[in-house]
Amino acid sequence: MKTRAVFRSTLLFSLILILAGCTNTNNPTPSTPTAGQPAATTAAADPLPSWNDGPAKQAILDFVKTTTDPSSPKFVAPEDRIATFDQDGTTWVEHPIYSQVLFAFDRVGELAPQHPEWKTKMPFKAIVTGDKEAMAKFNLKDLEVLLAATSTGMTEEAFPPIVKDWMATAKHPRFDKPYPQMVYQPMLEVMKYLRDNGYRTYIVTGGGQDFVRSYAQPVYGVPPEQVVGSAIDLKYEYNKEGQGVLMRDPKLLLNNNNGGKAEDIYLFIGKHPKAAFGNSTGDQQMLEYAQAGGGASLEMLVLHDDATREYTYGPAQGLPDTKVGTFPQALYDEAKAKGWTVISMKNDWKQIFAWEK
Amino acid sequence: MKTRAVFRSTLLFSLILILAGCTNTNNPTPSTPTAGQPAATTAAADPLPSWNDGPAKQAILDFVKTTTDPSSPKFVAPEDRIATFDQDGTTWVEHPIYSQVLFAFDRVGELAPQHPEWKTKMPFKAIVTGDKEAMAKFNLKDLEVLLAATSTGMTEEAFPPIVKDWMATAKHPRFDKPYPQMVYQPMLEVMKYLRDNGYRTYIVTGGGQDFVRSYAQPVYGVPPEQVVGSAIDLKYEYNKEGQGVLMRDPKLLLNNNNGGKAEDIYLFIGKHPKAAFGNSTGDQQMLEYAQAGGGASLEMLVLHDDATREYTYGPAQGLPDTKVGTFPQALYDEAKAKGWTVISMKNDWKQIFAWEK
Repeated sequence: MKTRAVFRSTLLFSLILILAGCTNTNNPTPSTPTAGQPAATTAAADPLPSWNDGPAKQAILDFVKTTTDPSSPKFVAPEDRIATFDQDGTTWVEHPIYSQVLFAFDRVGELAPQHPEWKTKMPFKAIVTGDKEAMAKFNLKDLEVLLAATSTGMTEEAFPPIVKDWMATAKHPRFDKPYPQMVYQPMLEVMKYLRDNGYRTYIVTGGGQDFVRSYAQPVYGVPPEQVVGSAIDLKYEYNKEGQGVLMRDPKLLLNNNNGGKAEDIYLFIGKHPKAAFGNSTGDQQMLEYAQAGGGASLEMLVLHDDATREYTYGPAQGLPDTKVGTFPQALYDEAKAKGWTVISMKNDWKQIFAWEK
Repeated sequence: MKTRAVFRSTLLFSLILILAGCTNTNNPTPSTPTAGQPAATTAAADPLPSWNDGPAKQAILDFVKTTTDPSSPKFVAPEDRIATFDQDGTTWVEHPIYSQVLFAFDRVGELAPQHPEWKTKMPFKAIVTGDKEAMAKFNLKDLEVLLAATSTGMTEEAFPPIVKDWMATAKHPRFDKPYPQMVYQPMLEVMKYLRDNGYRTYIVTGGGQDFVRSYAQPVYGVPPEQVVGSAIDLKYEYNKEGQGVLMRDPKLLLNNNNGGKAEDIYLFIGKHPKAAFGNSTGDQQMLEYAQAGGGASLEMLVLHDDATREYTYGPAQGLPDTKVGTFPQALYDEAKAKGWTVISMKNDWKQIFAWEK
C-alpha cells in the first residue's frame, strides 16, 4: 500500500483556462513526426539540421563532444549519460492549454451519455452544454474533479488505449493538427542526437505519467520506464474473477513539478541528469539538480518568442504574461547567472514543426 | 512536493527481532562474488552450473528458450524482457534478521557518541548498552524510530557512502562473512543468464531503495534505476549556500511489499514483468502480476529448506514458522495451483554461496 493524499495538486492542474475551444474530430490516425527531415538543406553530417547556427546549437554540440570523448577531462561514463526533458512547452506545444486538459474535456463529452446527472452538475454541465464562459472560469477544484472523473476508476490497462485514441483524432485548436504533430522538430533532433551518443533520454513531465507513457515511444522514441510524471496512486485489488488488477485511484502519489522533478528523478533514476531541458518555473529545480551533479552538464530553457510560428509568452524579456508555462524574468536571470542556455524559438530554430513548409 | 505520510509501514519493518546479535568489525573490504565459478564441474555451456538438474533449473532454461526464439509462439520482444527479483531471502540471506536492521543497529552504535541522550532513551538505550533482552522485545515503532534516526536527516548524497562502508565491514552473525558474500550464487547465475538473453533484471525489494542501490551494481550487476524499493520521501530544499539539495525526510513514500510491489513495478516500469522471483508473502502479488501479463511468464519462489547450508523456515511444508520471510502453506498451494515453481534450496541448488568448498 502506498501513501495516500487527496487528488489535489498545483502541478497537473496549475492552469488557468484561457481555453480557445476543444475539438474532437474523427480524422484518420496521424503519422508521427520523424526526425532528420529538415526543410532546409544542411550538411549531411549535421545532427541538428532544424537548428540555426548560434550559441544554443553550439552548446549542444560542445556538450556532446566534451562528454563523450574519453580523452576529455569532462568525459561522462556511459552509465551516467542521462538527459531529462520536460514535455509541455519544451518538446511540444502547451498553448492555449495543456493537451491533457483538452483530453479531459473531450472525455467528458464522450462519457456524458452514461452520466445524465452531468447535464445539471457543474463543472460537467459547462462542458456538456458547451458553455465556454463557464469553462473559462473553472478553478483548480473543477479541474481536479474533471480529471478524476475521466482518468481514474478503471484498471491501469484500460487507460492507455483511451489516450491513444484521443491522440489519433483530437486536433490542436489553432494549428488543426493532431498532437503528435505538435512536437518540436529541433527537440526530436536533440533527443536522437543524445541517444546516438549513448545518452538515455527521459521525459520528466508535470503531466500525468500514464498519459504521456501512452504515446511516448512512437512520438519521442522514449520507452515507458523512461517517462517520469505526475502519478496517481494505483491500488492492487482482486476483481470478481479473483485476479489481481491495478486500479487507478483518484489520489495523487507524485506531483512532478518544481522540486518534485528533482525528487522524482532521484527516485526513478538515482542519479543527477547530465543534461536537462525545460521552459518554465516548474523546470527550475530540475535544471539546478542537473548542474549540482558537478562536472560537465547542459541546462537549456525554451523561450517562446515566436508569435508567427508558435506563441509568445514569458513574462521574461517583456513577453506577454501567462499562467500556462510561465517563464518569469527571475528564471531568465538565474539562467544567465548560472550559465544555462536560453533557446530562442524565433532565432535558434530554423524549423519548429516537421510539417512546416 | 510529494504526498506525505507517517514513517510507518508494515513492509520494511514487518519484522520481529529474533536477533542473534550484530557485529561490526573492521575487516578489509570483501571482494564481491562473481558468477561462473562453481565448485562442481559442469559442462562449459551450462549457464546455471550451481543448479542441480531438475524441474526448477529446467523451468528457467525452457522459459529463456521459448521467449527468445523468434519462431516461438511465446516469443517476447526485447523491450518487454523484464525480470524482477525480490532481495531478502531470494537473492541473499535474510535470517536471523534483515541486513538493513543490523545496519541500523550498528549505526546507532556509531552515532551514540554524538547522542549522549541515547544512554537513557529507549529504544537506543537497549542497543547502546548491549541489552539483547530488551532488543528482542523491540516493536515496530521502535524499529521505525531507529531507522529514522540512522538513515534520514541528511542529504541523499550522504547516505550511500555510509551503506557502502557498512557492507565492506559488517559480517553475518552466523557465517562470519560480509553481506555481499551472502548472495546466492544460483540466483546470480539466473540474473546473468537472463541478461545475456536480453532481459533487464530489476531488484524489487521491501528493503530501502537507497540502501539497496548503494551496492546493487557491484553485488548484482543491477544499476540504480533498476532497483525498486521502499522509498522515503525526499524533499528538495536550499541549503545555506543557496544550493538545492535533496533531504532525506523521515516519511515513507513507497511501501514496496505485497500489493505495493505490483503497484511500484507499474509505477517504475509501466509493464508486467515476464519473470518474477520471490520467497515470501510479500512477493505473492508480484508473481501474480507477472502471470497476469499473459503469454509466457516464469514465477519462482525460493523455499528455505536447507538447515545445514542456510536456514529452514516456512511454515509451508511443515518447515519451522518464522516472522522473517514467511512462506505460508497457502502461498505454496497457490504456487502449485498456478504453475509457479518452488525452488528447494536443498535439492535444486548444488552450491548456495560462491565461497562454499
